[in-house]
Amino acid sequence: GACRDVDRALRVDFAATKALFHLPEGMIYLDGNSLGPLPKAAAARVAQTVTDEWGEMLITGWNKAGWMAQPEALADRIGRLIGAEAGHVVLGDTLSIKVYQALAAALDLNPTRRVILSDSGNFPSDLYMAEGLIGALDREHDLRTVAPEAVMDALSDDVAVLMLTQVDYRTGRLHDMAALTKAAHKRGIVTVWDLAHSAGAMPVDLARCHADFAVGCTYKYLNGGPGAPAFIYVAPRHSAGTGISRMRVGTPPVLQMAALDAAMDIWDHVDMQALRARALAFSEILIAGVEAACPDLRLASPRDPAMRGSQVSFHHPQGYAIMQALIAHGVVGDFRAPDIIRFGITPLFIDEDEIGRAIDILAAIMRDGTWDQPQFRTRAAVT
Amino acid sequence: GACRDVDRALRVDFAATKALFHLPEGMIYLDGNSLGPLPKAAAARVAQTVTDEWGEMLITGWNKAGWMAQPEALADRIGRLIGAEAGHVVLGDTLSIKVYQALAAALDLNPTRRVILSDSGNFPSDLYMAEGLIGALDREHDLRTVAPEAVMDALSDDVAVLMLTQVDYRTGRLHDMAALTKAAHKRGIVTVWDLAHSAGAMPVDLARCHADFAVGCTYKYLNGGPGAPAFIYVAPRHSAGTGISRMRVGTPPVLQMAALDAAMDIWDHVDMQALRARALAFSEILIAGVEAACPDLRLASPRDPAMRGSQVSFHHPQGYAIMQALIAHGVVGDFRAPDIIRFGITPLFIDEDEIGRAIDILAAIMRDGTWDQPQFRTRAAVT
Repeated sequence: GACRDVDRALRVDFAATKALFHLPEGMIYLDGNSLGPLPKAAAARVAQTVTDEWGEMLITGWNKAGWMAQPEALADRIGRLIGAEAGHVVLGDTLSIKVYQALAAALDLNPTRRVILSDSGNFPSDLYMAEGLIGALDREHDLRTVAPEAVMDALSDDVAVLMLTQVDYRTGRLHDMAALTKAAHKRGIVTVWDLAHSAGAMPVDLARCHADFAVGCTYKYLNGGPGAPAFIYVAPRHSAGTGISRMRVGTPPVLQMAALDAAMDIWDHVDMQALRARALAFSEILIAGVEAACPDLRLASPRDPAMRGSQVSFHHPQGYAIMQALIAHGVVGDFRAPDIIRFGITPLFIDEDEIGRAIDILAAIMRDGTWDQPQFRTRAAVT
Repeated sequence: GACRDVDRALRVDFAATKALFHLPEGMIYLDGNSLGPLPKAAAARVAQTVTDEWGEMLITGWNKAGWMAQPEALADRIGRLIGAEAGHVVLGDTLSIKVYQALAAALDLNPTRRVILSDSGNFPSDLYMAEGLIGALDREHDLRTVAPEAVMDALSDDVAVLMLTQVDYRTGRLHDMAALTKAAHKRGIVTVWDLAHSAGAMPVDLARCHADFAVGCTYKYLNGGPGAPAFIYVAPRHSAGTGISRMRVGTPPVLQMAALDAAMDIWDHVDMQALRARALAFSEILIAGVEAACPDLRLASPRDPAMRGSQVSFHHPQGYAIMQALIAHGVVGDFRAPDIIRFGITPLFIDEDEIGRAIDILAAIMRDGTWDQPQFRTRAAVT
C-alpha cells in the first residue's frame, strides 16, 4: 500500500521493471548485491553482438557497431545514476584495476603527502590494491585504516588520499560522502570513492559532493552480468586536457558490454529517488518482520535508514548454517564471515510480497531450528 | 598439392577446421591477426552461459559453472600452444594490463638495474605501459628502444628487462626467442615476451626457451572474439610459493571466457607444426604471386620463412587506398601507417584457393589502378 503510493507519485512502474528480469522459478533473490539477475533482453542482445556484429562485421565492428565508443557511451548512462557530469565516466577492466588507477592519479595530485587513509570496513581487495600500489611506488607511502566511525577525525594534514567504499559491504553502513569529501578538501586531501554497493542501489551525486575520483562495478546492483566491466569517474577539474579516455586500458570487453547495454536499457527509465524510497520501505519491513519473529538475530545494519545502503544484515553465531538453510528453502542472500547474513534490497526485481515471504521462511527456519543440520552447517556442502 | 601432403602427413584436417568458423559470404578474410572470426559453436556456448548459467545459477555460477576456475583451466589449453608448463598461464584483463604486471614483476627480479630494453618494432601500447610503469615507479628507470636487428648487441649489463614482441605487427619479422633469451640470461637480464602475434600463429616453446614472462591476447589468431581476455605466463622458477594465481586481478569476464572456450575447442585438435607448415606454404604462394603480378608492391616481411611470423606485408606509398580497394572487392587485410598493407595467414579458416583468389584480385586492382579513386583514397570514407 504505502510502497505503491510512493511509486505512483514518482512514476516508476516496478511491476514492469520486475517483468524485464529472468529469475529462477521459486527463488526469492536477495543477492542482487553480489550478482544481479539476467535482464531478459540481454540474451538476444549478446547473441546479436556475437552473430551479427562479430560474425558479420569482424574487424569493422570496432567502428560500425560502435564497440570502440561503447565504454564511454554506456558509462554516461551509469553516470546519470551517480550524478556524474556527462563525459566523465568510462568503463573497462575490473574494479581492482580502476581502484589502482584512481588511487595512482589521486596520489599524483598530492605528491608531498605519504598517507592513504581508508577504513576497516573497506573491501579487502581495495586495501590490497592500495598496498600493491605503495609497493610499486616507493614503499614510503603508508596505508592507514581506522574504524568507519573514526574516519572524519582521522582527516589529518599528512593524508594524501581518502579512499572509502561508500556502503560497507558487510553491514550496509553508509558514509556521508558530501560531508567527508568537504572535510577532506578542507585538509587538502583528495578523495577516491568506491561505489560498488552504491551505484544502482541509491542516488549518488558525485558532482554535487565534489568527489574527485570514483569507481564501481556493474555486475552487482546494475545487473550487467558475471564479468561485467568496472567504471571510473574523474572530476572534470582533474581531467582537463586529457579527458576521461586516458583511463581506458586496451580494448573493451565487447560481449560483456552488450549484456550491460541491455541492463542499462532498464535503468534508463528508473528514477533513483523512487528506487531509494521503495528500497528503504522494503528494508524497514524486513527489519521489523525479522526482529519481531527472530529474537536471536541481531541487526548488523544501521537502524537509521539514512545511514544505510540498500541491504539489511543480521548477526548470528550460526549465520553460515542459517543462510544455507534459507538458500535450501528458496531465499538467496549471502553470508559474510564471521557471523553476518546479508540481504540485498533491489526493488527493480524484488517486490513486497517476496520480502514478506522471505521473512516468513526465515522465521520458520529460526523457530524450528531447521538450520541445525549437518548439510547446512558444513562448509564443504557449499557448491 | 604440396600443402595437402603436408597436412595429411601431420594429420590435421584443415577443411574440417575451416567448416567450424562462420565467415561472411564472399569475403576472403586475411585479417585474423587483428580479430579472429567467429567459431560457429561460440554463439550457442555464449547463449548457454547467459541463459543457463547467469540466468539460472546466478551467484552459484562462480562454483557450479566453473566461472572462477576458468581463467586457469582455459589458459592451460592456450599453454599447450605456446609451450608453457601446465598451471603457469592465467587469463584476464587486457594485454596492456598483463604487460604492466609482467614488467613490474620482471623489474622486481632485477632491482639494481634501471633499463628496460625494447625495440622500435614493438607495439606503441607496450611501450606506453613501460613508460607508465616507470612514471609510477620512481622515474629513475629508462626505456631504451633500438632497431629490431640491434637488440642482440644492446644486451648490456645495465639492462634489467628485455621486453619484446616476438613477431613484429607491421612486418611480421620474427625474433629468435631462444637465442635472445639465452643471451639475455647470460647478461643477467630478465625477459618479457609479447606473443600477441605468435600465440595460435606458430609453434612457441616458452619452457624450452627458458622465457621468464610472456603475455598475449586471445582475440587475434586464437579467435576468442572482440574483448577476449589476455593471458600471462610466469616461469615456474619465478612463481614458486605464489603460483600463477597471483597474476589474477578481480573477477574474470565470464561471457568472453565462454566465447574463447568455443575457440579453444577447435585449437585443442590442432598440431602447431602442421599449422606452421601450411601457413608458410601459403605465405610463399602469396609472396610469389604478388611479386610476379604486382611489381610496385615491395615485400616488407622477411623473405626467409624462418624469420617470419604468420603474416605477409608489402610496402606501397598508396597502401591505404590499395587496402580500401581490396576490402571493397572482398579481400580483407589491413593497413599500417605509413605504407604497409598486411595479410594475416590463418590456415585454420583460410585455404589455398582463397590465397590464389586474393592474389588475382590484388593483381587486378594494381593493374587497373582501381585503388586510385576518391572513395578509396580518402580516410574519412572508412567506417
